[in-house]
Amino acid sequence: MERIGVAMTSPVSSYLEEEVEGRFKVFKLWKHPVNSEQAQSIRAVICSTQSGADANLIDSFPALEIVATFSVGVDKIDLKKCMEKGIRVTNTPDVLTDDVADAAIGLAIGVCRRICECDRFVRSGSWPKREFGLATKFSGKSVGIIGLGRIGSAIAKRAEAFGCPISYFSRTEKQHHKGYYKYFPTVLDLAANSQIMFVTCALTEETKHIVNRQVIDALGPNGILINVARGAHVDEPELVSALLEGRLGGAGLDVFGNEPHVPQQLLHLQNTILLPHVGSDTIDTNIAMADLVIANLEAHFRNDPLITPVS
Amino acid sequence: MERIGVAMTSPVSSYLEEEVEGRFKVFKLWKHPVNSEQAQSIRAVICSTQSGADANLIDSFPALEIVATFSVGVDKIDLKKCMEKGIRVTNTPDVLTDDVADAAIGLAIGVCRRICECDRFVRSGSWPKREFGLATKFSGKSVGIIGLGRIGSAIAKRAEAFGCPISYFSRTEKQHHKGYYKYFPTVLDLAANSQIMFVTCALTEETKHIVNRQVIDALGPNGILINVARGAHVDEPELVSALLEGRLGGAGLDVFGNEPHVPQQLLHLQNTILLPHVGSDTIDTNIAMADLVIANLEAHFRNDPLITPVS
Repeated sequence: MERIGVAMTSPVSSYLEEEVEGRFKVFKLWKHPVNSEQAQSIRAVICSTQSGADANLIDSFPALEIVATFSVGVDKIDLKKCMEKGIRVTNTPDVLTDDVADAAIGLAIGVCRRICECDRFVRSGSWPKREFGLATKFSGKSVGIIGLGRIGSAIAKRAEAFGCPISYFSRTEKQHHKGYYKYFPTVLDLAANSQIMFVTCALTEETKHIVNRQVIDALGPNGILINVARGAHVDEPELVSALLEGRLGGAGLDVFGNEPHVPQQLLHLQNTILLPHVGSDTIDTNIAMADLVIANLEAHFRNDPLITPVS
Repeated sequence: MERIGVAMTSPVSSYLEEEVEGRFKVFKLWKHPVNSEQAQSIRAVICSTQSGADANLIDSFPALEIVATFSVGVDKIDLKKCMEKGIRVTNTPDVLTDDVADAAIGLAIGVCRRICECDRFVRSGSWPKREFGLATKFSGKSVGIIGLGRIGSAIAKRAEAFGCPISYFSRTEKQHHKGYYKYFPTVLDLAANSQIMFVTCALTEETKHIVNRQVIDALGPNGILINVARGAHVDEPELVSALLEGRLGGAGLDVFGNEPHVPQQLLHLQNTILLPHVGSDTIDTNIAMADLVIANLEAHFRNDPLITPVS
């Protein structure tokens, strides 16, 4: 029997590549373009945060039935086009929640306690020459979370153990958190009442630049912004200005507007920690995400219900 | 009325210096040696982890009544000499617990998730050239704690929120944690059953080099050691060898054997995060510790009970 054609858009996981090659006829688009005969044979696309599935890509595979992204975010997939053409979409939620929440808390402690700056100080041989100075306490700081979904809730649970009071913004108040986590109906109000603000919501037209100049100024010169969602949630030039001018206290960023490119000015700031979009990049989670991508493709081609369809 | 003479051994906090100067006649020993007349007038010493109170110092102040350390650890104070001479000793417990626990968790997430290494990678401009690679998940790792006192318990509480099963070693099993945290009667057994091990106990003759080669090897090539207690708890040359040879997975260190000097070989290792003994060095806690030092001195000279005497 001829094997089903599957196109992969980027090299996200060697484990995933091997597992997919064991089951399907794989076309690695970052290595070779496909010819029109090959394009006709492709019934599935595996994409990622590095390289998604836009209208052009979707239209170039006339037999395409399913797009499976190796990510929880689907902002790099043209969902409208998929819906029009009846193409199914799956993502990898849940399995990466812990890792992204860990990275978020690691960034928050790191920025408060100046951990990477400390590490640079020791490695540069400065310790015998002068004192490092004081940092900011993390425990007990008021935490604001934009988007109390899976990842936001996991951050809240962790921050609670540090004695941090939790507030959040979302489109509607979560009834099961009522009286426990404080709800703010606007991001601006949340920022004004938070010392550390985490961005964790999905990227949509509505949430693009949800952290704008006004929000940054409401967070203020002692405030800290942690972004583990998508770079486009934040007006990046405004963030850079605020950090340079001391209007924002610090930032921990796993994501940027134009990855893998990071604004040059951020590279020299001490009050930032900069990660190369590795929120879910652990060995354990990489395997779990790959297994979920494959389980979704196999379910689709067996006509079974998808494991994690994007609604 | 003549003011009471108080000697300070090191410049730990400008806030503390100001507050002490407002109440006592202060001699800053790191600036000027005292003459014999001044020495006669000194009734209290304020010391720290940087510079303690050894037998010589204690004997040089014949009117000394109290040693108040700006730290929770009293390993730099000759307690035996103090007891013989009826000199009282106070420390600053509790107020620094959160900060040290935060630093410990920050180090653990940082080493697992390679946060400072990531930050160096982004700042060096490497991201557009190559992928960073995968890290290790923190949530769910089995955590072992040496010494389940105030700081150890605060670390346990935080790690639980990350889904980490908790084990500990201490001289005796803590009855109130029975069936909840797992007790190991030896550090070696604890290390063999932990993926991340935290050193949080007091430094005494018994706990010196409590983390030796055998313990490091039991923790193993995927194990991570976090030390927020004292450098002398760890056989440092053995730790360095194990990290260099890959017999230990990684280490997060706030303390070293010969501070402020750090073994040269550690400075180039990627699988470490090195802090300049800043576990409790936040603005908030610095003030709380200074206030507690002063409250103890004032209580002593008013003949009130000490707030936090060392038993």
